Amino acid sequence: MKKNNKICKEMSKIETKIWQDQVEGRNSVIELLESGRDINKIFVQDGEKHGSINKIIAIARDKKILISEVSKEKINQMAQTENHQGIIAIVPPFDYCEVEDILLEANTRQEEPFIVILDGIEDPHNLGSIIRTAETAGVHGIIIPKRRAASVNATVNKVSAGAVEHMKVARVNNLVETMKYLKQQGLWICGTDMETKTYYYDQDLKGSLAIVIGSEGFGMSRLVKENCDFLVKIPMKGKITSLNASVSAGIVMYEAMKQRN
Amino acid sequence: MKKNNKICKEMSKIETKIWQDQVEGRNSVIELLESGRDINKIFVQDGEKHGSINKIIAIARDKKILISEVSKEKINQMAQTENHQGIIAIVPPFDYCEVEDILLEANTRQEEPFIVILDGIEDPHNLGSIIRTAETAGVHGIIIPKRRAASVNATVNKVSAGAVEHMKVARVNNLVETMKYLKQQGLWICGTDMETKTYYYDQDLKGSLAIVIGSEGFGMSRLVKENCDFLVKIPMKGKITSLNASVSAGIVMYEAMKQRN
Repeated sequence: MKKNNKICKEMSKIETKIWQDQVEGRNSVIELLESGRDINKIFVQDGEKHGSINKIIAIARDKKILISEVSKEKINQMAQTENHQGIIAIVPPFDYCEVEDILLEANTRQEEPFIVILDGIEDPHNLGSIIRTAETAGVHGIIIPKRRAASVNATVNKVSAGAVEHMKVARVNNLVETMKYLKQQGLWICGTDMETKTYYYDQDLKGSLAIVIGSEGFGMSRLVKENCDFLVKIPMKGKITSLNASVSAGIVMYEAMKQRN
Repeated sequence: MKKNNKICKEMSKIETKIWQDQVEGRNSVIELLESGRDINKIFVQDGEKHGSINKIIAIARDKKILISEVSKEKINQMAQTENHQGIIAIVPPFDYCEVEDILLEANTRQEEPFIVILDGIEDPHNLGSIIRTAETAGVHGIIIPKRRAASVNATVNKVSAGAVEHMKVARVNNLVETMKYLKQQGLWICGTDMETKTYYYDQDLKGSLAIVIGSEGFGMSRLVKENCDFLVKIPMKGKITSLNASVSAGIVMYEAMKQRN
């Protein structure tokens, strides 16, 4: 009987994980409220009603969102990140889009498509940071693979400073097939790789463009690399031979942004 | 008696913290060994003798560095980061330099000084990532304040991918005084701030230059901002109004690097 109870609890835990996600921290929850995305419930830590938490409670009441006060212990237990700052919002799982939706977004903005493809970024901090930079650089959407890569969760949301709420993210089975499809749609695919002679700032990055960023440890996979239209590299003057993935992504995205404006 | 013992243990802990630092993880320890920096001792986890750990042991034996095998529990207890990968090197504390040493470094390389000033970066991950990017961008040294800012520790070393071993870092009492000194030495001081009209890529960043990066939450302090020769901003096209500090630092440093080459 006890064992069954345990199994039921475990199953309900798994279900919770599948059917809902959570957003933690004051700024992230404010961004979430402002984005207009559905919120199931907001948990506030007892006694933490001051400053920005009061602002959150006021907006949430206005939107008729359920607010629940819980103890410090309970909220620490619920938290998936270290900096929940006494506030957690429960939301439906992240709503991935289709690749077509990203192209439509570009069309709606009357701009040439500007997409970032992540070939196996595994660290949620890097994914969150890349989404944040992509949002500020005017990228229309991000494409990630379904397997062996970080997906959008509470940590990603937090690190992105709420940018995931404003960014289209598509998850695909096969990156190479998606790249071929994007080429048919008239996009140029720009890979980032150390084994090329072209510096990122010497390459024309205007027009319809997808930039591919490789994984933290291994860069782009062979097939993905072979399917790029051209490769660019970031010059390295020191003894260290690689940059953090989210920093290199930022440098190349901003070069493209500068050229496109 | 027991209490006294406890106090002694606590004091010896504090002393260890003051008088030595540690470097964790395979790549970081390899970088450390290759840098020629002093190493007091290397701890290796029992049974972890394979692949790159064997390489580390071979180099360490060659350099007559003491190697000690310890249990998994012991090494987990010693570790200050999550990814020690079964290896920790104990080193003398980080050797900060003087601001003059940074100018000398530029002189030795026969280049015009290229310095990064961090006005209150508090997250060791950001500090580590900025040091890594600075090293690859050819920066001669980094200046940080003594108070209210992250200092170089095991996390910074790890995140920097070993770049701290090749980078001059000066810790100063008063950033504004240091900025005045650098101006006397002929450097231009470039601040990064959203409240200016100049985009970073429209500014001449050649010549003797120090770039100031503000803190994660509040940007540059008022006095630091007032003492900059000019300010630049990174354009933001989306709804999010700020970038991660290490990403913005990377974007501006690489623009300067591009212009200087």
